[in-house]
Amino acid sequence: MLWKARIEITLKKEVLDPQGAAVENALKALHYNNVKQVRIGKYMELYLEAEEREAGAKQVEEMCRRLLANPVIEDFSYTLTEAER
Amino acid sequence: MLWKARIEITLKKEVLDPQGAAVENALKALHYNNVKQVRIGKYMELYLEAEEREAGAKQVEEMCRRLLANPVIEDFSYTLTEAER
Repeated sequence: MLWKARIEITLKKEVLDPQGAAVENALKALHYNNVKQVRIGKYMELYLEAEEREAGAKQVEEMCRRLLANPVIEDFSYTLTEAER
Repeated sequence: MLWKARIEITLKKEVLDPQGAAVENALKALHYNNVKQVRIGKYMELYLEAEEREAGAKQVEEMCRRLLANPVIEDFSYTLTEAER
């Protein structure tokens, strides 16, 4: 079965996010003054072949830990949905 | 009311994604051979003050169009949820 994984990788709360701060300042320069706590992360989509959801989820988790995210400073979350071929 | 916006910004389908291709190759080098079509985008979180969901959504959409995304090569989607203070 083919699965579509959507992965969100965010900096941990304790980690400073200068890119987010820069974007927040830029938004304020455009007079969006009601915005706060902008945080920037990564988003990834991929397709993977797996017999069952559980096996797919386990693999996505492993790939995040080993390659896609840096577990020292980043958190990740993901969703898996069945993909049409 | 305080809203939390989660924004996903992805490259349009027609746009080449060399970063995604590099990650796909790296995954294959780690023997994840069942993975394909890796695409990399951006993920943003922010909080904004708005009386109603509709006003908040309209503003997020406008911010994406004006600053956060590049509408020539990127698509964006977002969700708004009520945030606890």
